[in-house]
Amino acid sequence: MPPLTKDVIKFGTFTVTSQVFHLSPLSFALVNLKPLLPGHVLVSPRRVVPRFNDLTQSEVQDLFLTVQRVSRTVERVFKATSLNIAIQDGADAGQSVPHVHAHIIPRRKDDLPETDAIYGMMENEEGDLGKQFVQRDKEVRESKEQEVDGDIPDGEQARGRFPAVDADESRKPRSKDEMKKEAEWLAREMVEDTKGES
Amino acid sequence: MPPLTKDVIKFGTFTVTSQVFHLSPLSFALVNLKPLLPGHVLVSPRRVVPRFNDLTQSEVQDLFLTVQRVSRTVERVFKATSLNIAIQDGADAGQSVPHVHAHIIPRRKDDLPETDAIYGMMENEEGDLGKQFVQRDKEVRESKEQEVDGDIPDGEQARGRFPAVDADESRKPRSKDEMKKEAEWLAREMVEDTKGES
Repeated sequence: MPPLTKDVIKFGTFTVTSQVFHLSPLSFALVNLKPLLPGHVLVSPRRVVPRFNDLTQSEVQDLFLTVQRVSRTVERVFKATSLNIAIQDGADAGQSVPHVHAHIIPRRKDDLPETDAIYGMMENEEGDLGKQFVQRDKEVRESKEQEVDGDIPDGEQARGRFPAVDADESRKPRSKDEMKKEAEWLAREMVEDTKGES
Repeated sequence: MPPLTKDVIKFGTFTVTSQVFHLSPLSFALVNLKPLLPGHVLVSPRRVVPRFNDLTQSEVQDLFLTVQRVSRTVERVFKATSLNIAIQDGADAGQSVPHVHAHIIPRRKDDLPETDAIYGMMENEEGDLGKQFVQRDKEVRESKEQEVDGDIPDGEQARGRFPAVDADESRKPRSKDEMKKEAEWLAREMVEDTKGES
């Protein structure tokens, strides 16, 4: 499958091009380094802005049409029956990477001991998102890989807002190759779902 | 201020007309019986459908332009700095009233002991939404008020998915008059914010 784009896609200051599985004119969808549940993905506007209110009307419309299309595909391919869709809009709501992003988390009956457990997990994840990317960039720089050109985030972004719970810490970050493979698979599935549309 | 509409606005099977403070062609915003924090409101499509994927493209676009406009106003008037925006899309994600709705919750620094506490609260709220409306309808019927004409919801809707925490149980449902006053105030503030728009 050819790459979705020759553009460099940024999530905050981080380069995430190989994690992207869907592009619309103004938005993109990416797979996660540490999904909370299978199929946990993010959708962001292509323009790097921190707050939902920073988006133009066209960006809002494009973002949520993308959320809807992505939701449909991840619910189908991960055999889910429900979805959590959530935006932490600003630092005081738990946002760590200052770039608008909607979490989409496929859900099934009894997939967690309590349905609401996902939120504590999401908060830890969100708090960790900055940290995770810092760690990955560090590893990538150390291994002298040139592909990732993300700026080094400042301390503000890198600081997690919440102590990670054990379950969170025990989840290993996925390899770049694993994420790329999932992104390619989801990209094909997105195309499949689009075929039916007029 | 004249009523926003002569239509009867339904949230699931419940009539919420007097709680509505903003109407767009395809969406409406309503104040909450038991807000988790000041300014916690809901935005729904006018068409009663359970899942996000049930919405047409026009409904998705209108819904989130409405969420953006409402967010702007509640963040301003409740002097917030951030917002939680969340949809429980389906029963297995914690949805209790089977009518698409986005929670908008204004946030400030240190408004809760932990930023993520809002999610546990929201889940209890969501689980309780059905129950709350059932209780209110019951009270209304008992007091022979004729204004509310909501159908009696079935057991499925009425059953809360989560045990309510103490904090939740201790929050008293607001009176119809209190909600109506807040809805009228927010309606005026929404108009104020719209004046600046071209």
